Amino acid sequence: MHSIPKSLDVLIKEFSRLPGIGYKTAQRLAFFILNSKYDLALNLSNSLKTLKERIKHCTKCHGITEIDPCIICSDIKRNDSLICVVENEYDIFIFEKTNAFNGKYHVLGGVLSPLDGIGPEEINVKSLLDRLKAGMEIILATNSSVEGETTALYLSKILNEKDVSVSRLARGIPIGGDLEYLDDATLIRAMEGRTSI
Amino acid sequence: MHSIPKSLDVLIKEFSRLPGIGYKTAQRLAFFILNSKYDLALNLSNSLKTLKERIKHCTKCHGITEIDPCIICSDIKRNDSLICVVENEYDIFIFEKTNAFNGKYHVLGGVLSPLDGIGPEEINVKSLLDRLKAGMEIILATNSSVEGETTALYLSKILNEKDVSVSRLARGIPIGGDLEYLDDATLIRAMEGRTSI
Repeated sequence: MHSIPKSLDVLIKEFSRLPGIGYKTAQRLAFFILNSKYDLALNLSNSLKTLKERIKHCTKCHGITEIDPCIICSDIKRNDSLICVVENEYDIFIFEKTNAFNGKYHVLGGVLSPLDGIGPEEINVKSLLDRLKAGMEIILATNSSVEGETTALYLSKILNEKDVSVSRLARGIPIGGDLEYLDDATLIRAMEGRTSI
Repeated sequence: MHSIPKSLDVLIKEFSRLPGIGYKTAQRLAFFILNSKYDLALNLSNSLKTLKERIKHCTKCHGITEIDPCIICSDIKRNDSLICVVENEYDIFIFEKTNAFNGKYHVLGGVLSPLDGIGPEEINVKSLLDRLKAGMEIILATNSSVEGETTALYLSKILNEKDVSVSRLARGIPIGGDLEYLDDATLIRAMEGRTSI
């Protein structure tokens, strides 16, 4: 469409790069931006840059934070001997939303997937082992996908050799389900009903 | 969720302001931005600002453009005596995509809607009348909504007093459409507007 002004065309293409946003939706978003106040575009524009400039990974739990260590890791009220191991940074907020977990987290930053060349060295396993202290409890909260289960199994084998107890989220989670889409009640039940492996 | 870093929370809220994007989708987009390269965020950020800075309305057709008058209005190859009247700027690109229309456009910037306080003065009717020349054809291409039909009826009454011919987009069965799934109104219009072959 040669008649679309260049700057509009560029914005549509940039929006299309986002997940779940096709060309039509991108067009709709771009036209919305076009017809709304300057501030809306400016605020979105600035917050995109601010996010990339300010957010870093916590050196302790590998979660995302603006200050290092993150507020969860540096919170003295939280139980230091209870670590919930999750796949990615996002999962922390899913658990935090339930307000039912008072321990700390450890973000693996992925799951074992030999076909994709992701082995134990590619995810944050070593730093997890470095955090272990005698008597700790480690909750494996990876997703119920094949890769998530494999990773949990792998970790449980390593961790059972150490002086820690290892548990897995209870089977309240539907098989193949994604943590992202679970409701709070299910998450709380899963956390309470964790089973030792 | 107190544990979400502020800059991430701000971006999620800014994304949620866009149409069709709820909190969950906004979260997903923000995390995607977070985990992708700096360039992706920067390009989107810049294109948002560039759009708002560069795009203005064509003083002739009220379409959007970076140069005034727009490339359609200033195209000498296009038929000057054929004007397609559309509701908003976006509609121009819908017709342009077909490559089948060689006239010019006029954007009303809305439709008559007395309940919302939108009368003929609130939309670009006067500038349309200023563009009229004897022998012109005006195609009324407003939507088939109640407001669109009302606007077309209003315009046709005014325009029929001038020395121009007025037409409305044909009503009927969409190409590839199945009779079984068409609504009664469309079928009645298709029957009324039947053409001899």
